[in-house]
Amino acid sequence: MTVQSFASTAEEARHRIRTNQWRGVTSGVAPGHVQANLAILPRDLAFDFLLFCQRNPKPCPLLEVDTLEDYWQDDLVSFLLGCSFSFEQAMIDAGIPLRHQEQGKNVAMYITNVATAPAGVFSGPMVVSMRPIKRDQVVRAVQVTSRFPATHGAPVHIGSPRDIGIRDLDLPDFGEMVEIKPDEEPVFWACGVTPQAVALSCKPPLMFTHAPGRMFITDHRDADYAVL
Amino acid sequence: MTVQSFASTAEEARHRIRTNQWRGVTSGVAPGHVQANLAILPRDLAFDFLLFCQRNPKPCPLLEVDTLEDYWQDDLVSFLLGCSFSFEQAMIDAGIPLRHQEQGKNVAMYITNVATAPAGVFSGPMVVSMRPIKRDQVVRAVQVTSRFPATHGAPVHIGSPRDIGIRDLDLPDFGEMVEIKPDEEPVFWACGVTPQAVALSCKPPLMFTHAPGRMFITDHRDADYAVL
Repeated sequence: MTVQSFASTAEEARHRIRTNQWRGVTSGVAPGHVQANLAILPRDLAFDFLLFCQRNPKPCPLLEVDTLEDYWQDDLVSFLLGCSFSFEQAMIDAGIPLRHQEQGKNVAMYITNVATAPAGVFSGPMVVSMRPIKRDQVVRAVQVTSRFPATHGAPVHIGSPRDIGIRDLDLPDFGEMVEIKPDEEPVFWACGVTPQAVALSCKPPLMFTHAPGRMFITDHRDADYAVL
Repeated sequence: MTVQSFASTAEEARHRIRTNQWRGVTSGVAPGHVQANLAILPRDLAFDFLLFCQRNPKPCPLLEVDTLEDYWQDDLVSFLLGCSFSFEQAMIDAGIPLRHQEQGKNVAMYITNVATAPAGVFSGPMVVSMRPIKRDQVVRAVQVTSRFPATHGAPVHIGSPRDIGIRDLDLPDFGEMVEIKPDEEPVFWACGVTPQAVALSCKPPLMFTHAPGRMFITDHRDADYAVL
């Protein structure tokens, strides 16, 4: 089953994922629906993490906070963070092709040397997603994604990967590499996998997250999160 | 001393306010610098309030959270929320006059019948600020303020005050009324005085806030909070 044949309503997508009919990445699934990164933490760390998200709105744009304590035995709090998949449809609509979607791959993600703003116990490096963009479309890509500050917004870096501590684009820390052609620049967006890298750095006693690229699919529409 | 003669650097503005040389509203003071609403709460309410702000980003766009516990005897946490004064300079630059600034008045603010999204103990009505805008400039006002989602962003309502539960524009709940001319519409933006209305509604045991219109003046530049 390809992403294309799988793509459907958000509700159907969640059903197929819950019943193990789809275990792949969710880029391009249920087009137009907001997808979210997930982090679940014990209640005693929830204030620190909420503050961490507020201080790092580019990598950690918080969409929702759900307390699961009513029906879960432990005292856990869930955080849903915006995902760059939300602006991918807007990029495609603007005529900007996305190689990872075309090739059915997960987007390439890298741990950078850019520090997040610490909050309580949470600190560590920012993670970015990378998309190769034709030079004559880079400005348009900045404009299109700037409309979506709640789902990572404008790029955090354009061009030289070394400037943000990425030594080898061929070796992403999460996801899969895609080719960068001579007329393209690598463009980097803050990524909601940042909490995972932060967790590896500051080691909270307990934390659940989604797998990179396999997002929580909400019923909300991407367009509702655009500021313009 | 008028606002105009008082306007200076952010640091000088804070000094004159601390030393009681200025006790007026701060609209137009230290142009270009981000001004903020202030709320201070006991630590045991801080998670609920942080969540309340996250769920109500239009009236309560959180700029910063400072813990004062290092040098205050009680266990207090301060929240600085974005203020619509940040986009007023952008409106003036776009040729949209602001009557309350021209007349040296505080902006008119109203408690609406629009409910905020509850978080923990916090719930209550949204407060809005109102500016009369010429009909042929309303679209431009929407565009200019949409660039500033961290300082209330686009209007929440245009036109008929009754639609949002305001019975009489001549009787603002906070600030001062200004005249609305026949070729103008009242335009309403979500307002950082919302926590005050929420506090009156849900009555936390302890909460400090700023006085409406008399903001905390930061060293940050308004332009840094624009998404475009």
